Amino acid sequence: MRTIKLVVAYDGSAYHGFQKQKNAVTVQSVLEDMLAKLCGERVVTAGSGRTDAGVHALAQTVTFTTRGRIPCANILRASRTMLPRDIVLIDAQEVEAGFHARFSACWKVYQYKILCNDYDDPFMARYAWQLRERLDMEAMNEAAAFLCGTHDFSAFRSTGSVESSAVKTIYEACWRRQGRELLFRIAGDGFLYHMVRNIVWTLVQVGLGKRAPSDVAAELLTQRGAVLNEPAPPEGLYLEQVCYEPYAAHKVST
Amino acid sequence: MRTIKLVVAYDGSAYHGFQKQKNAVTVQSVLEDMLAKLCGERVVTAGSGRTDAGVHALAQTVTFTTRGRIPCANILRASRTMLPRDIVLIDAQEVEAGFHARFSACWKVYQYKILCNDYDDPFMARYAWQLRERLDMEAMNEAAAFLCGTHDFSAFRSTGSVESSAVKTIYEACWRRQGRELLFRIAGDGFLYHMVRNIVWTLVQVGLGKRAPSDVAAELLTQRGAVLNEPAPPEGLYLEQVCYEPYAAHKVST
Repeated sequence: MRTIKLVVAYDGSAYHGFQKQKNAVTVQSVLEDMLAKLCGERVVTAGSGRTDAGVHALAQTVTFTTRGRIPCANILRASRTMLPRDIVLIDAQEVEAGFHARFSACWKVYQYKILCNDYDDPFMARYAWQLRERLDMEAMNEAAAFLCGTHDFSAFRSTGSVESSAVKTIYEACWRRQGRELLFRIAGDGFLYHMVRNIVWTLVQVGLGKRAPSDVAAELLTQRGAVLNEPAPPEGLYLEQVCYEPYAAHKVST
Repeated sequence: MRTIKLVVAYDGSAYHGFQKQKNAVTVQSVLEDMLAKLCGERVVTAGSGRTDAGVHALAQTVTFTTRGRIPCANILRASRTMLPRDIVLIDAQEVEAGFHARFSACWKVYQYKILCNDYDDPFMARYAWQLRERLDMEAMNEAAAFLCGTHDFSAFRSTGSVESSAVKTIYEACWRRQGRELLFRIAGDGFLYHMVRNIVWTLVQVGLGKRAPSDVAAELLTQRGAVLNEPAPPEGLYLEQVCYEPYAAHKVST
């Protein structure tokens, strides 16, 4: 059996999320349909994690095992004509047995895009959270700093979360301005259900002046399921990177 | 009766073109449904022209007459919550009786976007023609220059065209580079069915070295329906501007 690792970028607008579902087109189901043709057998893929309907990925990782003998370069080439144009295979590599997109992952990076505009841009409707109000980015960064480190993130978990432990380590959480856009980058060893979107919503409340930066620290301490939060809209969220070496090693090598 | 002029931007990806059709969602049908609620009566709108399925508009013009008394500012404000997010009303103004989005138009500007990339960008699938080959922009501009002036454009008209005269005046036709993008801007007093997309396809053949720039001049002279051409894909095309004063006046005033 060979173990193959794919890196996939997708525009999530047209899909019911990454993960396979009955009676809904998802990114994973589209990938598995293609792989069945290329490998000559149905394969079961594992993603590094789910992304919700409307959420995008710049580099989602997917692994599967197969008896098929197709070279990885041919999977890559064939994908260009077999996949719909909003799903792009960036890389395909054979990896050691036992490597798993989800269980081998050490940390992940998400990006969230906000567009501050006087009127909505119809071409960004699927790709950013569009706000008319101005946001205080410094206050948002002051609040985001409280998230860094190891905490119980129950306060930013939506109900429906299946993970047992809410203790996660956040390595980076920072906003930057790029033209009309405000971009949030958050890196951590794991994320609970809706955690990034709940965090973004809260930080936007801070940016609007409706909450103080220190409220975020106080909220973390409650360790109760998100009652004060609601998830920011999915269309602003991008899974940016999934990393398979410890964060510390990454910091040393870069 | 009041005559009202709207300026509308839309992402055409999700629509069967601008123009009303039976059993298909179009930009015009969405607009008319909203206007019926706001004006208290069904209204019949006129667009400056059709755009095909998948084609976008940065500023399409739409006019209609109504007995409704709703102020234009209220139409604008209400549209923000009543329209889907991929259609944005940019302006609403009362104009003199007899003004007509299509018949009063003097000239129009279209933009066509090509993305030259080693691999497809899933986020641009709906917004540009993506090509892996490099294009010779100078040759394309040399060819485009032959289009300027008054010519019979039959050679760039697809069958299905309903307009009687194929004689049109092109004021500007030029490519420019912007980052990874090649942008074509074409301004003229009228455009035949698929004319811009047929022109772009031909200019891309020149950019690929498959035709000489002077072939475009020779082709214009044939004055026969497009046999050598096929339309470039719709997703790269944007209706940029519709102008209601003569081109000469515009040039003097700017």
